[in-house]
Amino acid sequence: MSSQSVVTIETHGAGLYEFTDRVMVFIRSARIESGLLTLFLRHTSCSLLIQENADPDVRRDLDAFFRRLVPQADDPAMAYLTHRAEGPDDMPAHIKAALMPVSLSIPVMDGRLALGTWQGVYLFEHRRRPHRREVVLHLGG
Amino acid sequence: MSSQSVVTIETHGAGLYEFTDRVMVFIRSARIESGLLTLFLRHTSCSLLIQENADPDVRRDLDAFFRRLVPQADDPAMAYLTHRAEGPDDMPAHIKAALMPVSLSIPVMDGRLALGTWQGVYLFEHRRRPHRREVVLHLGG
Amino acid sequence: MSSQSVVTIETHGAGLYEFTDRVMVFIRSARIESGLLTLFLRHTSCSLLIQENADPDVRRDLDAFFRRLVPQADDPAMAYLTHRAEGPDDMPAHIKAALMPVSLSIPVMDGRLALGTWQGVYLFEHRRRPHRREVVLHLGG
Repeated sequence: MSSQSVVTIETHGAGLYEFTDRVMVFIRSARIESGLLTLFLRHTSCSLLIQENADPDVRRDLDAFFRRLVPQADDPAMAYLTHRAEGPDDMPAHIKAALMPVSLSIPVMDGRLALGTWQGVYLFEHRRRPHRREVVLHLGG
Repeated sequence: MSSQSVVTIETHGAGLYEFTDRVMVFIRSARIESGLLTLFLRHTSCSLLIQENADPDVRRDLDAFFRRLVPQADDPAMAYLTHRAEGPDDMPAHIKAALMPVSLSIPVMDGRLALGTWQGVYLFEHRRRPHRREVVLHLGG
Repeated sequence: MSSQSVVTIETHGAGLYEFTDRVMVFIRSARIESGLLTLFLRHTSCSLLIQENADPDVRRDLDAFFRRLVPQADDPAMAYLTHRAEGPDDMPAHIKAALMPVSLSIPVMDGRLALGTWQGVYLFEHRRRPHRREVVLHLGG
């Protein structure tokens, strides 16, 4: 038996958006003891990430690292980029979406997600403007 | 019920090779309404990637970014590399294969892959010489 | 039918730790002909990686690349980091854990993992001090 759902996340600027709670609601409603949850992101300019949910500095530093690794297209270091139709944050967003996952799988044990103590589930938005993002949840028995 | 298949992709130089069509043929032949497709790459010098399939500049820019992030081994910046047996594109290929996925999972909803409008499925070849690459497809019910 | 297990790996410093053998023991004990194995790491400062298991230089070079891409927090290039509570290897470990997988899926065909000839399964430890790491294995039929 399997169960599917789509979670919609409204983003308002680049950064990490936690949605662990919404995933847990789905798991509880499925009333399954043992299984595998898979998350799939239907976009190419944001990412899924499991990261520390304790200190918010971790998310700030992650964001800072990736902004330095992949600067905006109007930075001289990125003069080689050709895909610029949607602005200076467009192609860097695609690059970050290649560097971090579009799909993630988490086992369900004893009716609960097998996340570690400090793990939270995040959408990492790479675009500046507001977006409506869809994450497909698939729970297999 | 599950179904498996192996897709073979002939590459002729580094870059992105789309094979979304071949995945869709497999999904249709399986005649499953709801499930989870997993792709697995049996190699350590290429990657799987879901990326934009509209503007070819996106693929060109992705390739350009990764060539700068991980230069060939004959670049002075990479003088620290020791694994050089198969040429200057060998170890950089392994590094890129660590930075991008070897496995990907995509839900199947209403008999179709739940890909977003602009998402295509690609093999990202990191080696220069021609290679015969195998992707295992697993569809779980 | 599905089967689950937890593998514990003791690490003693940063680097790659192979545990392909332990995964294979689990697969054999499950006596399943066709299925999907998913590995999930319950931590945010180490990664899972499938990489070449032939030449140990590959692992050394991978480690060297990531140490250069994400220097320790006491390196001047990383002065922007704010999360420093657990020492200079703390935040860089979280960054590497964002760049490499926390979950991986490998099909099982004819009762065996569908790994390529040169592929091994590794835990990539990013912290210096000894850690006890847990990898959840989920095998779906």
